[in-house]
Amino acid sequence: MSKINPLSGFPELLPAQRAVEREVIASLSHTFELHGFANIETRVVEPIERLAKGGEVDKEIYVLQRIAAEPDAKAELGLHFDLTVPFARYVLEHAGHLEFPFRRFQIQPAWRGERPQEGRYRQFTQADVDIVGRDELPFHHDVEVMSVMVDALAGLPIPRLSFQFNNRKLIQGFYRGLGIDDVTDAIRVIDKLDKLPADEVAAMLVERVGTTPEQAQQCLELATIRVDDTSFVERVRALGVSDDLLDQGLEELAAVVEGCKAVAGDRVGVEANLRIARGLDYYTGTVVEVFMEGYERLKSVGGGGRYDALASDGRTTYPGVGVSFGVSRSLIPLIADGVLAGDRPVPSVVLVALNAEEDRATSTAIAAALRARDIACEVAPTAAKFGKQIRFAERRGIPFVWFVRAGGDAGGTSQVSHQVKDIRTGDQVDADPATWTPPEADLRPRIISTVTPTSDTPSTSEEIQ
Amino acid sequence: MSKINPLSGFPELLPAQRAVEREVIASLSHTFELHGFANIETRVVEPIERLAKGGEVDKEIYVLQRIAAEPDAKAELGLHFDLTVPFARYVLEHAGHLEFPFRRFQIQPAWRGERPQEGRYRQFTQADVDIVGRDELPFHHDVEVMSVMVDALAGLPIPRLSFQFNNRKLIQGFYRGLGIDDVTDAIRVIDKLDKLPADEVAAMLVERVGTTPEQAQQCLELATIRVDDTSFVERVRALGVSDDLLDQGLEELAAVVEGCKAVAGDRVGVEANLRIARGLDYYTGTVVEVFMEGYERLKSVGGGGRYDALASDGRTTYPGVGVSFGVSRSLIPLIADGVLAGDRPVPSVVLVALNAEEDRATSTAIAAALRARDIACEVAPTAAKFGKQIRFAERRGIPFVWFVRAGGDAGGTSQVSHQVKDIRTGDQVDADPATWTPPEADLRPRIISTVTPTSDTPSTSEEIQ
Repeated sequence: MSKINPLSGFPELLPAQRAVEREVIASLSHTFELHGFANIETRVVEPIERLAKGGEVDKEIYVLQRIAAEPDAKAELGLHFDLTVPFARYVLEHAGHLEFPFRRFQIQPAWRGERPQEGRYRQFTQADVDIVGRDELPFHHDVEVMSVMVDALAGLPIPRLSFQFNNRKLIQGFYRGLGIDDVTDAIRVIDKLDKLPADEVAAMLVERVGTTPEQAQQCLELATIRVDDTSFVERVRALGVSDDLLDQGLEELAAVVEGCKAVAGDRVGVEANLRIARGLDYYTGTVVEVFMEGYERLKSVGGGGRYDALASDGRTTYPGVGVSFGVSRSLIPLIADGVLAGDRPVPSVVLVALNAEEDRATSTAIAAALRARDIACEVAPTAAKFGKQIRFAERRGIPFVWFVRAGGDAGGTSQVSHQVKDIRTGDQVDADPATWTPPEADLRPRIISTVTPTSDTPSTSEEIQ
Repeated sequence: MSKINPLSGFPELLPAQRAVEREVIASLSHTFELHGFANIETRVVEPIERLAKGGEVDKEIYVLQRIAAEPDAKAELGLHFDLTVPFARYVLEHAGHLEFPFRRFQIQPAWRGERPQEGRYRQFTQADVDIVGRDELPFHHDVEVMSVMVDALAGLPIPRLSFQFNNRKLIQGFYRGLGIDDVTDAIRVIDKLDKLPADEVAAMLVERVGTTPEQAQQCLELATIRVDDTSFVERVRALGVSDDLLDQGLEELAAVVEGCKAVAGDRVGVEANLRIARGLDYYTGTVVEVFMEGYERLKSVGGGGRYDALASDGRTTYPGVGVSFGVSRSLIPLIADGVLAGDRPVPSVVLVALNAEEDRATSTAIAAALRARDIACEVAPTAAKFGKQIRFAERRGIPFVWFVRAGGDAGGTSQVSHQVKDIRTGDQVDADPATWTPPEADLRPRIISTVTPTSDTPSTSEEIQ
């Protein structure tokens, strides 16, 4: 085999980096489970007609075919490009065996054949939480599922995240109250505000959507409201538009912002940003996008919302609300930048040194005694000089080396003595494999993060724009 | 969307079943880590030329192409069909960043477009442990890696497993000592012993490999030796063949059998079975196949061995030894047969009941207090009658329901009292959300297994065939 070149868009982690990803996934999973979400995994393939729905993503779908297939055989399967499509199908397929509202989390890779760039990979892992009802799903689950993701992400040693919420009912009600007919089209134009200057967007509203200049101005006013408390309610009211759907949207958005702020602390920002719409048509209420401080160039690292028809089999409709976090999209840039690193590439806390190859059984027995008390360890691969064995541990970041010596006093009785050395400090002490325990902090590989933990008091409510 | 039919060969688990798989994967991972193995994941795709090496599996490879690719574009990527090919490539690609011997475990799906049947799926999860050296890898790692897998699998509540070991040096040395020229071909014929009667295999040895009838008889004698201790050494010697490679093979096989028996206890059988050869050419020493009692129809549920050239870049060769366990192959039939089940489909231990929708904040605060002490819980979705809320918990297998009552005595002071009900027994007691703890056994979903745990004393050494 020849030299291997990396495959663009398919990043792979070294062992210490993978330890970071595993700890993050374990931490997220733990929080999701504390909130009663069950884990599922779906198969990675779906029928192509279920994946390709005419959206932007369609052309990025990877289709699959057996190598031995007939040359003109039609490919029928593709790799999923997110976890929502397979989850909707899972709900429909297994509905008879699920209890609703069904609360699930799912952490799996997805695939998109897009042009690779920082934060955008062809294989990438996502973490999704959703709650799905049968026929109906009370609004309070919107608050719940968003709070759960805030709670989960607040526990990670990554740069400060910002949850920016809006509500489609609010936008639609406002536009309707203004007398704009084509609400969907107006949303699509307003969505361009992050690329185009405000006056160009206003002109497009007039030309393409057919609003009056005054209506366009009102739309822009709405879209520039961005606060980190519920003061948006008053500001929207001050624009003088009244509509039932708008009222409902305001109330829902206020409840989501309040509920999330209650669990966010300082680590996570929670805002009402009335410009957020999310292009996807299927959102019908709460919408959210998540950004990472200092990494705005990645665009959103998470997002989601309420969909009144996540899935339907014709007879029954399954409304849902959920949010997704881009594990690869956020972690891989952070690891590449050195913001996150693993403190060692191996789980071992102890290297049990080897006096001579014939003594391997002795060292193996010591290792077994340590493992019986959940201390990860390995025996030195060769009976090299102790200095070399210590350097072997050092290169792997293993903090302790265990030595065993056949004591044997003058009388010839065979006494065995054990010592353990902390190779970081050089301290070497007597130890008993049946009782010695390393410091708690050394037990598992840890994440080293350059992010300074902020104090965990809720931030004061103040307008930030 | 219309009714969904399952996709043959792509089994999916319901939440309680997935909980079983997760517990199994967590248990395996924990043991691998205790032995100092680092986890890695590889991307799921490899260049087709790296996957297709002319073997039987080639025609089962799934190739991948962007849906938007030109009609006559050549597909360049395929999904990996095992974890060995991607691991070998990972070692070559990242060798400069790895410390050798490199100890890794990997638990990921793989894909084969084969005809689906019990235990054989088109998407299936494997758990692999391997140790890889640079230029050299001492033999003791064979004993180590096999013992680690024995240790890991002995901890699972599944039917008794049997590790059946052999050694390619033993077979090759024996055949060479007998004077057979084409050792590889002879192994291939002997491999048919599980399908054909012994006399037919003997005839094939004479006709196809060109052995004498006496040599053929000796080959059969060797292949029928199957013992659960090291007495095979004497029995092979008694056949009167002498060869250096044979001696080395006998010594290695005895060390592997002894090492594995030391950790196996009663749950796992360890045997020398001199018929095991494993078809794959790259094995060069230790070989193993793992079978599950009562599930012999699945054929092996695991296997592996020593390969002196797992990978090579022309300059450097990387020898390895490893073993793979078929997580899907074994668990999915066990789950389908009801041998394994999850005790509940949700992680929640407690359902916090809801007096009225206006009191949701009170119940949410109780849930937060329980979660702060790592007790998974959820709040009732609606303020239905308590009987209905209890049945909601029952359907989900949630063992406890928490009630809060605004006491309020005659004096009008607002006293809150808490009670928790074990809905399995009906017991209801006063409780404080800041201190109440459920029994340890209820904290996490558990695996219910019909397999009776055997006592964990090492089995007596006796010949079993």
